[in-house]
Amino acid sequence: MKITSVNNELVKETAKLLKNKYREEAGCFLIEGEKGINEAIQAGLVLRYIFTEENTNSYSGNNVIETTEAVLSKISDAKSAPKVVAVAEQLKYSAEDLRNAKKVLLLEGIKDAGNLGTILRTSVAFGVDGIVLYGNTVDLYNPKCVRSAVGNLWKIPVISINNLVELEELFCGFERVATLPKGENVVNLKDYVAPEKVLIMFGSEADGLSDELKTFATKNVTIEMDPTVESLNLSVSVAVLVYTILK
Amino acid sequence: MKITSVNNELVKETAKLLKNKYREEAGCFLIEGEKGINEAIQAGLVLRYIFTEENTNSYSGNNVIETTEAVLSKISDAKSAPKVVAVAEQLKYSAEDLRNAKKVLLLEGIKDAGNLGTILRTSVAFGVDGIVLYGNTVDLYNPKCVRSAVGNLWKIPVISINNLVELEELFCGFERVATLPKGENVVNLKDYVAPEKVLIMFGSEADGLSDELKTFATKNVTIEMDPTVESLNLSVSVAVLVYTILK
Repeated sequence: MKITSVNNELVKETAKLLKNKYREEAGCFLIEGEKGINEAIQAGLVLRYIFTEENTNSYSGNNVIETTEAVLSKISDAKSAPKVVAVAEQLKYSAEDLRNAKKVLLLEGIKDAGNLGTILRTSVAFGVDGIVLYGNTVDLYNPKCVRSAVGNLWKIPVISINNLVELEELFCGFERVATLPKGENVVNLKDYVAPEKVLIMFGSEADGLSDELKTFATKNVTIEMDPTVESLNLSVSVAVLVYTILK
Repeated sequence: MKITSVNNELVKETAKLLKNKYREEAGCFLIEGEKGINEAIQAGLVLRYIFTEENTNSYSGNNVIETTEAVLSKISDAKSAPKVVAVAEQLKYSAEDLRNAKKVLLLEGIKDAGNLGTILRTSVAFGVDGIVLYGNTVDLYNPKCVRSAVGNLWKIPVISINNLVELEELFCGFERVATLPKGENVVNLKDYVAPEKVLIMFGSEADGLSDELKTFATKNVTIEMDPTVESLNLSVSVAVLVYTILK
């Protein structure tokens, strides 16, 4: 198939997937660039369409659409238009997918899509079994998150939970680690040894962990740092803590 | 003083500081937001001008300029105009400033200003004594780097070096650690113990370390990770390695 008009209905529908609301309705998301798309194919994701520049032969099949730079630019929010954009079906995980998980990361209210993608990449690298997005967070399938995850978005289950009851039920028997600034009853990371089952919890970029989750925690851990530095970047904190605890 | 026109000469000169070329000529850079500016004042940086919204009383002095949102937007490249922007004099460091340093980070060809700022913040937090920018890198005083460093830009010396001879002279007697992917003669980070004087080297986001610096290295270290993950985000790699080695 070949589409050259930016006003084509399928192009317009695809461009809507740049917005969270339409991604949820359609259950789809966008993957930009050959590398990410090839990783998605390898992982067995269902790709509904692959929009690719004319005169390339990288992909074949009924779902391949030859198109123009203008169309590719319209269905991407990257600074420069990618050469190929795929429409993939979202993976739907439930709490069941975390039943056998032992090393779980919880992110409360995370708002920055780039941070979330980077954290996914780091989590897969360091052996996290699954991720819980708690409360009101950025959408996992935000294109910036997909980009920052660099092909790691679909390698571990990510579930959303919005209430403490469900969290308590799922992580009964886990050590629940709150990552906090220095303070009373807070262990330095270098002195902390985690048990087999551990839920590592981080608060949002702006507000840190809520009182609700601070109370839910069974252990408080801090990353030792120079007292003149107020805080670390969230994806940096997660990486240092997860590597140190799980290595 | 009060300036309301975006065409005012001082405003036009200040807006030029968004570009590296003019920053170098003027030896100045821009700091956005009260928090960063207050940290700069506390650190004793020379602020030539402070552009601030009308009717705020946060700053006083001959260098304070009351102005409009349009002017603040013109002299910033942030998504939304900051309420205050200062013109600060750049700190000029030389190799002399690293003479007594023992824990030094080298970044070769780093291109992403956000990464550099985040790495500065992390470096101060974890006790790095100084940073070497090697080869062709992004400008330290790029506004995005200043923002990402969150008030830590001026806390440790950062010098630029462009040739191996100078590097060899300055880091004679140091263990020179190349951070590399897994491979022959590469030690896992968890098994590595650094000596007192250590230069930790990272390559660029796209290309990794050059052959020149690989040869210059006296030790190769890798961050253990899941084999399906090709690489980590640069600021994440730096944080994990620096924390683990220096803690």
